[in-house]
Amino acid sequence: MQNFVLHNPTIVIFGAETVEQIGKETAQLGKKALLVYGKKSIRKYGLYDLVKKSLTDQGMEVLDHGGVQSNPVLSHVRNGITAAKENNIDVIVAVGGGSVIDSAKAIRAGAVVEHDVWQFFKGKKSIKSTLPLTCVLTLAAAGSEMNGGMVITNEETQEKFGTGNKYLNPNVSILDPTITYSVPADYTAYGAVDAIAHILEFYFTTADPSTPVQDRFMEGLVINIMESCGRALKNPCDYQGRADLMWCATLALNGWTAAGLGMVGFPMHMIEHSLSALYNVPHGAGLSVVMPGWMRYQANQHPDKFAQFGERVFGLKGSKMEVAQQGINMLESWFSSVKSPTRLAELSISPHDIPAIANNALSLAKVWRLKEYNQETIEEILKGCI
Amino acid sequence: MQNFVLHNPTIVIFGAETVEQIGKETAQLGKKALLVYGKKSIRKYGLYDLVKKSLTDQGMEVLDHGGVQSNPVLSHVRNGITAAKENNIDVIVAVGGGSVIDSAKAIRAGAVVEHDVWQFFKGKKSIKSTLPLTCVLTLAAAGSEMNGGMVITNEETQEKFGTGNKYLNPNVSILDPTITYSVPADYTAYGAVDAIAHILEFYFTTADPSTPVQDRFMEGLVINIMESCGRALKNPCDYQGRADLMWCATLALNGWTAAGLGMVGFPMHMIEHSLSALYNVPHGAGLSVVMPGWMRYQANQHPDKFAQFGERVFGLKGSKMEVAQQGINMLESWFSSVKSPTRLAELSISPHDIPAIANNALSLAKVWRLKEYNQETIEEILKGCI
Repeated sequence: MQNFVLHNPTIVIFGAETVEQIGKETAQLGKKALLVYGKKSIRKYGLYDLVKKSLTDQGMEVLDHGGVQSNPVLSHVRNGITAAKENNIDVIVAVGGGSVIDSAKAIRAGAVVEHDVWQFFKGKKSIKSTLPLTCVLTLAAAGSEMNGGMVITNEETQEKFGTGNKYLNPNVSILDPTITYSVPADYTAYGAVDAIAHILEFYFTTADPSTPVQDRFMEGLVINIMESCGRALKNPCDYQGRADLMWCATLALNGWTAAGLGMVGFPMHMIEHSLSALYNVPHGAGLSVVMPGWMRYQANQHPDKFAQFGERVFGLKGSKMEVAQQGINMLESWFSSVKSPTRLAELSISPHDIPAIANNALSLAKVWRLKEYNQETIEEILKGCI
Repeated sequence: MQNFVLHNPTIVIFGAETVEQIGKETAQLGKKALLVYGKKSIRKYGLYDLVKKSLTDQGMEVLDHGGVQSNPVLSHVRNGITAAKENNIDVIVAVGGGSVIDSAKAIRAGAVVEHDVWQFFKGKKSIKSTLPLTCVLTLAAAGSEMNGGMVITNEETQEKFGTGNKYLNPNVSILDPTITYSVPADYTAYGAVDAIAHILEFYFTTADPSTPVQDRFMEGLVINIMESCGRALKNPCDYQGRADLMWCATLALNGWTAAGLGMVGFPMHMIEHSLSALYNVPHGAGLSVVMPGWMRYQANQHPDKFAQFGERVFGLKGSKMEVAQQGINMLESWFSSVKSPTRLAELSISPHDIPAIANNALSLAKVWRLKEYNQETIEEILKGCI
């Protein structure tokens, strides 16, 4: 186990019929709220009205800042910061998934400084304080609701950058599984794939060979994400399935599994990012294509951890290399079973594009300090995704 | 999964050579520290000097309050509160295991109120603020370093009462596994047993049949506590063994596994408490006697969860009742293998004493609201420990 510092001060309020608590929790942090949300869905199912009433019932003033898109953009964040400053906003409320919460985090950081918020992403300025943030989560996927990370795309420069900071952890996040009853099957599956990817990036890239309790946690999470996603797809209103999926997705990236792993990388996200950037495929759909290819490439060289994965997650027995490969096959089959694509062709991407995709990914490899990846290795991984 | 609120703001600094950070961390919280510790061991291995130097190097004034005993007592807590008040102490530093940290928690709560601290334990007053608390942990066992619970014995009234509150979570806890190299074999094992007991109380007493991710976490913890304790006993300076054991013991009772379980009970602790109270046996030693007996009693009535335990923790296969019983046998064998007793006779307790022990435990059953336990059921469980 590597040395670590763990601090996750977010208060999680989890369960059915907890959304009504957003007003009371937020009113303890400020009087004038900026309500950040996405496009249609929160209005469609009455969630918008519920949150707004809960806030105004506490005597709060609420200013709307809707319209966050997936792969959230800097211009919208900047507009939010301007609105927050002009209206003396003293607390941010995010109602949505990872894109909305990430936008709200960028607004909370940018609203308390004079300089442009993008300087935080470029590493030119450090976040030293933020406006308070409360969240109502609507999608089990990204994990932003209980961590201090955020990813924003600068449309002008075509940069999609992320940064993390202890001041970005939401003060309070409300996780009500019943809100996700209306998430369609494809996005339920993509969310599950995203959460599995977060876990497996850590699991397979830690350089520490002695992370036994973290391994058990991560294996348990993968098993449960598959099981609970299956329940949610079979019956979208299966409370226990939605609840387990929601909590597992949060746990996948809240720092608990990573504590003690030391340095980890995000190579599968790096390659997927190029698919999203070049072909605008959903993040989870891109990940389920990249993951088996990346895993096979790695397992050929270092089968041990992959064998452990096959053995513990899928109960396989046999030689190390057999179990390693069979475990990857079974994960891939599971992706197919939830109708998340596993081949480039399913995303309508031609093998001829592989050099261009690899080249795009390479620029991120440099930013993310994934030194062992070059044009050739990324192409080889992508060839395994044909 | 049941609704829950989770909030654990403790900053954990984990790893080798982290103790030196205690001064810097504490100096951010106050200028005048009360240093709470136990008896000999922290002086013997140079830890006392290291902590004191780290604090004074930051310009802090430090007042000693040593002498905490295991099963920490109210009179010593009261003396600490008086010392804190008279000397305008503004931060508490605990260096020790669960007894020391619990005493420090009681002092931090009592030092900011006019009334007697025991009123918090009797439920007559609520904790609404505390002095800050930093900890250096010296024993992998109780889990107090990352939770808001404390247990203190009132020697005058013979009451051993516990209470919990969000203001009691340590601000910072330093967990350096190398400090535990000097913990003797018996207390290393008792600590592991205590941590396993914390997990299994939750695991077997939750009334919710749908806690799948929590189950995986708890099973993973039990597996790792057994493995890491084995490593630590084989080689007391095995860093990875000590590190894994230390972190697992913290995770066993920091709220993460319990989130979503709903109401749980502590029936094994209830019965063990009588053994400790009447015969002054070490807590872990008493637990390893009570646990198999309690588990067999429960498994006869509700084998399902015990079968899951045998299957997942020990890899057993067979009929539900067979796997349930065999799993308990294997846990009991493991207790024996680490030389923690599993029979009342090993504690020199006669079967004739069972009615008196049960009667003592019964008084706690009322306080802890374990309504399903009466004189007869407790006697029956204890007969299984002969």
